[in-house]
Amino acid sequence: MCAEVSLSSLGEFGLIDRIRARFPQPLLPELGIGDDAAVLSPSLGMQLLVSTDLLAEGVHFDRSFGPARLLGRKALAVNLSDLAAMGARPRWFFLSLAIPSAFPLDDIEGILDGLAEQAAAHDCILAGGDTCGSKHGLVISVTVMGEQSPELVLKRNGAFPGDDIWVSGWLGDSALGLSLLQEGQRLDGEGSPIARHLDPVPRLLLGRELAQASLARAMIDISDGLLADLGHVCRQSGCGAELMLEQLPLSERFRAYAAAQQTYPWQMAASGGEDYELCFTASPDNRAAIREIGKKSGIPVTVVGKVTSCGQVRACLPNGSIFQPSSSGYTHF
Amino acid sequence: MCAEVSLSSLGEFGLIDRIRARFPQPLLPELGIGDDAAVLSPSLGMQLLVSTDLLAEGVHFDRSFGPARLLGRKALAVNLSDLAAMGARPRWFFLSLAIPSAFPLDDIEGILDGLAEQAAAHDCILAGGDTCGSKHGLVISVTVMGEQSPELVLKRNGAFPGDDIWVSGWLGDSALGLSLLQEGQRLDGEGSPIARHLDPVPRLLLGRELAQASLARAMIDISDGLLADLGHVCRQSGCGAELMLEQLPLSERFRAYAAAQQTYPWQMAASGGEDYELCFTASPDNRAAIREIGKKSGIPVTVVGKVTSCGQVRACLPNGSIFQPSSSGYTHF
Repeated sequence: MCAEVSLSSLGEFGLIDRIRARFPQPLLPELGIGDDAAVLSPSLGMQLLVSTDLLAEGVHFDRSFGPARLLGRKALAVNLSDLAAMGARPRWFFLSLAIPSAFPLDDIEGILDGLAEQAAAHDCILAGGDTCGSKHGLVISVTVMGEQSPELVLKRNGAFPGDDIWVSGWLGDSALGLSLLQEGQRLDGEGSPIARHLDPVPRLLLGRELAQASLARAMIDISDGLLADLGHVCRQSGCGAELMLEQLPLSERFRAYAAAQQTYPWQMAASGGEDYELCFTASPDNRAAIREIGKKSGIPVTVVGKVTSCGQVRACLPNGSIFQPSSSGYTHF
Repeated sequence: MCAEVSLSSLGEFGLIDRIRARFPQPLLPELGIGDDAAVLSPSLGMQLLVSTDLLAEGVHFDRSFGPARLLGRKALAVNLSDLAAMGARPRWFFLSLAIPSAFPLDDIEGILDGLAEQAAAHDCILAGGDTCGSKHGLVISVTVMGEQSPELVLKRNGAFPGDDIWVSGWLGDSALGLSLLQEGQRLDGEGSPIARHLDPVPRLLLGRELAQASLARAMIDISDGLLADLGHVCRQSGCGAELMLEQLPLSERFRAYAAAQQTYPWQMAASGGEDYELCFTASPDNRAAIREIGKKSGIPVTVVGKVTSCGQVRACLPNGSIFQPSSSGYTHF
């Protein structure tokens, strides 16, 4: 590549101009990029749902694993997944980038492309942010804001003994994809475990439909692994859970991998991070209606266990014994 | 120090528990730390003002320059200053920390102390955030949210030819403080240039009073230096400005430094960054009322020039010639 435009020749305001040009801005009387603060008009009577995630190079992502575009898509997806878990509709997001001065401008453009795609797909408006230099590695910090009626917001604390425990989609693909990437494999087509790791899809429609229909009692997105995240729901609801591991929804590729390894990789399916599927609890009376919503949203939903009153999360292996995870989620420090 | 507790022994959830214990949480029916997203109830009919800043070690701060507590105070102050510049009342903030695993826990505690002090001083509630590891250096990302009535929000685009240009407080202290820190000096008491650099005070009361009284037409906070930030106001208002440099408010310590150097350090006063004072424009008819509000807020306010129709920002030296800044603000890349 010849005469690559560098970040330093573009400058901070040049970069901000490029960002602004790529994202539709809030409509008047709102105000996005370009003042000290964004000016937003929340819908009357709605509650505001706000989530923030910071992604640091070398900790959350390895740029050699895939194209910059997917990194941009994922940076917003993981935040939108939190809104999905509250049953909210996305409205606005804020983007902060700390960028090493030698960072390739093409990769910045790729990240912005991915963010813009994800934002457009979910009708989420870039309303502000911050750009600055970084001595070591790229940092992407995203704050996302959504809305929902107060009586429909789905929290973690509503699970009730006897509830079914549901999960959306397929578990373990992302952890398997990460492990394949670490072994040196690279992106190999849509829907593969590697694609599911690099480009997770936030389950916004499913989450919102479940909230609007008041069918679920508690919901969380699976970012730290099902066992860890279900543990949060149980602690905050003052109850426990019994999972049937053979009921966990596994993709065909995941099953093929497990068969080739001659093992059932429960560890990845039950404790692997970054699935970004939804886990929710609901009265057994709602089963048919929930399956209907799954169909409408285009995402399979599966009952994987029961909420109990015992205060523990137990995961049963097919032979009836209790599964002991080697770790129940990702440890940061 | 013996048996220092390390971050890795505390773990992510231990750290989150410590953070949660230190900050008052939103009152029901709102929800702060502990679910997928914070659940907030904006006041009916108010607009929401949102600003975000990311601070990276080695770029925005040098931990050897002062105590961790002041770093925590400043991380929130620079965001609150953006709300001050819109005339908003702070409501909630979100805190993301990327922390190297060897980072001293005492310094984390210091940062949290400083954040908690600043938050309490301005009635701003910690409603969520993210904590994770960092391979290189500490990263602090803060998003702050405030409110104001739509008709009272003060933007950058309202300046009008003939308006007075006002600034609050004193200019240049922060740039001087940074330069002294870089020369090896350290914190030397309240109100000194070094203290003003390490512990800026957001002008929230002044900003809000000006907005509530509808006395100002455009406002910005001075983070990149007066000339650069006034340039933003002029561009967005489609006008220009003429500054009288000898009218810039300079602190006694700044004057003493300038006298000792036998120079007038206009560069620091007019283009030094991180003053976090307010710059606003207003009709000359409002002078007495604005001085009154300055008194009420306890912050001096000074007329430093006029808005013009020419489209340029000109800064006049005492001898009538035009000042040429060597740089009109901080460059990030």
